[in-house]
Amino acid sequence: MVGRKSNAWAAKDSSAHLSPYSFHLREAGKDDILMRVLYCGLDHTDLHQMKGELASSTTNYPLVPGHEVVGEVLELGSEVKKFSIGDIVGVGGIIGSCGECSLCNSNMEQYCNQIIFPYNDIYKDGTPTQGGFSSLMVIHQSFAVKIPEKLAPEQAAPLLRAGVTAYSPLKQFMNSGQIIKGGILGLGGVGHLGVLIAKAMGHHVTVISSSEKKRKEAMEHLHADAFLVSTDEAEMKRESNSLDYILDTVPAVHPMSSYLLLLKPEGKLIIVGAAPEPLQFLPSEIILGKKAILGSFIGSVTEMQELLNFWVEKGLTTMIEVVKMDYVNKAFERMERNDVRYRFVLDVAGSNLE
Amino acid sequence: MVGRKSNAWAAKDSSAHLSPYSFHLREAGKDDILMRVLYCGLDHTDLHQMKGELASSTTNYPLVPGHEVVGEVLELGSEVKKFSIGDIVGVGGIIGSCGECSLCNSNMEQYCNQIIFPYNDIYKDGTPTQGGFSSLMVIHQSFAVKIPEKLAPEQAAPLLRAGVTAYSPLKQFMNSGQIIKGGILGLGGVGHLGVLIAKAMGHHVTVISSSEKKRKEAMEHLHADAFLVSTDEAEMKRESNSLDYILDTVPAVHPMSSYLLLLKPEGKLIIVGAAPEPLQFLPSEIILGKKAILGSFIGSVTEMQELLNFWVEKGLTTMIEVVKMDYVNKAFERMERNDVRYRFVLDVAGSNLE
Repeated sequence: MVGRKSNAWAAKDSSAHLSPYSFHLREAGKDDILMRVLYCGLDHTDLHQMKGELASSTTNYPLVPGHEVVGEVLELGSEVKKFSIGDIVGVGGIIGSCGECSLCNSNMEQYCNQIIFPYNDIYKDGTPTQGGFSSLMVIHQSFAVKIPEKLAPEQAAPLLRAGVTAYSPLKQFMNSGQIIKGGILGLGGVGHLGVLIAKAMGHHVTVISSSEKKRKEAMEHLHADAFLVSTDEAEMKRESNSLDYILDTVPAVHPMSSYLLLLKPEGKLIIVGAAPEPLQFLPSEIILGKKAILGSFIGSVTEMQELLNFWVEKGLTTMIEVVKMDYVNKAFERMERNDVRYRFVLDVAGSNLE
Repeated sequence: MVGRKSNAWAAKDSSAHLSPYSFHLREAGKDDILMRVLYCGLDHTDLHQMKGELASSTTNYPLVPGHEVVGEVLELGSEVKKFSIGDIVGVGGIIGSCGECSLCNSNMEQYCNQIIFPYNDIYKDGTPTQGGFSSLMVIHQSFAVKIPEKLAPEQAAPLLRAGVTAYSPLKQFMNSGQIIKGGILGLGGVGHLGVLIAKAMGHHVTVISSSEKKRKEAMEHLHADAFLVSTDEAEMKRESNSLDYILDTVPAVHPMSSYLLLLKPEGKLIIVGAAPEPLQFLPSEIILGKKAILGSFIGSVTEMQELLNFWVEKGLTTMIEVVKMDYVNKAFERMERNDVRYRFVLDVAGSNLE
């Protein structure tokens, strides 16, 4: 049995051009909510997946992207206690996991080996999953979070995946009782939210970039405390052994040695950007100084909720550009050239999806 | 002013051939002890340093190697409270640090940026440092440990550098209250002690090797719980996501991907062998699973003392081959071909050093 029809935009092949497409949702069960999609963030993973460029998975077409979804609850399954009709809810990087393993039982479900992605995956009932560029979605209540009333829904969208990707690993440095010095590498969707989150946590934040170009936006728009040009050897040397962590959001191959040198003893280089090619380091760069290279993948549902509450509590503002669906191809084109400050958010409900 | 004369064996050039050499020790100060060297372990760093092969430092000749030194206290400076004359003491991988920084004040002095190595370095008074292949040594009391009475001095030698290199990072898994599954990569000086230490900590220990050759010694001599051949893809796949940590002691370039796969989520690959060439990994290998690549350098003086006490408490035995000084060139030759189970220890006091 299949569920309701949803109007969406999909990529039909690896040209990655999006155009109207309709499909039937999976049938909603007792733990599911039916939501009307309001907004959806756009990110680089969408683009790589649409183009079939990811080494880790084959893309199946038609593909409806979108994994930073904000919607309104229209219907509730009989066992749904977490939400009420009319609630504004959010869905991020995963929509399912086994629910039984130690990871699922310790708020680390994103590391379960049976996670289900919002699109280009198969749900437990055999239905292909489709993302948030779509009028409706059916979601298990465990994988949705409540958007706080004080937060505009379009503002919330980028927090659900990009935001929590930064928040989850930075959380360990929150309330440490010490002055934490952090570095942020890359000022894209994840990086800009990383600066805002780290600042709100009270860290001293240095934006590290390969050129002077981003100094003004780092210092004036994002209110970073310092800006470091990684190609300036003298400056890099001066700042060696100065940072407790570097959040490395660069999803491309880049040398790690100069960044490892910036870390204090016991400092952590946190990799969240999945470059498709290997990264390299010299063992001595981590042995002397007891340094660590850590991986981190999105965040848990609990962390998504924590971040949304943190965002409201700290009065933060996501820097986004809201666009309609008929602009989506152009938006991806601009994203590819880094021509967005810092995240496109699709106004799905306000677009004509026919 | 210079101190006493010491008879030693030194490498005179990069041929790394050792022959008799005498030199004057630095003058002993109020915090120093004068010790008669009894035993000294031999390791690969000695060999690399003698050959001038280390990228991190230039070798100055004549070079007296040796940084796993056990000796008897002959004289005490006026401020030495830690030891008495006649005590058997040990000296490991460093003999000095600034003594004032936060690292020195938190038992992490091995990561201080002013550490002084036992040989091929310059002491605070300007004297070149010379290692344990020498009849006498002058050592600041802070960098010596007491060898427990129940431990034979030759048994203690390899623990002072190789042993503590394994103990320091494995300590975090001690008394966790959980069943810890560890892997040991490489069965040299550090690796064999790693197996013994991990077993004594109660871990389930898997020795990982590139060939079947070491199965018998891993299982029968070292009493590992399991043996895994890294080139057996089917077996490696079966064991994926199974280990809490891997202690990687291999001081040469090797692929990391297959080892990262063996780690559980939040598992740690601990690098203690300083390969002179870069190591490589794919970001997705650590992002998915929140895995970590950690560096660790020898251990602190406090950890050396802990390990010695642990060794006695657990009734462990170091597997060594004791040789006299006139065999030392041959011993290094054999070590280069991995023809030692597992550590050569020089009987310095029992050798003719003239």
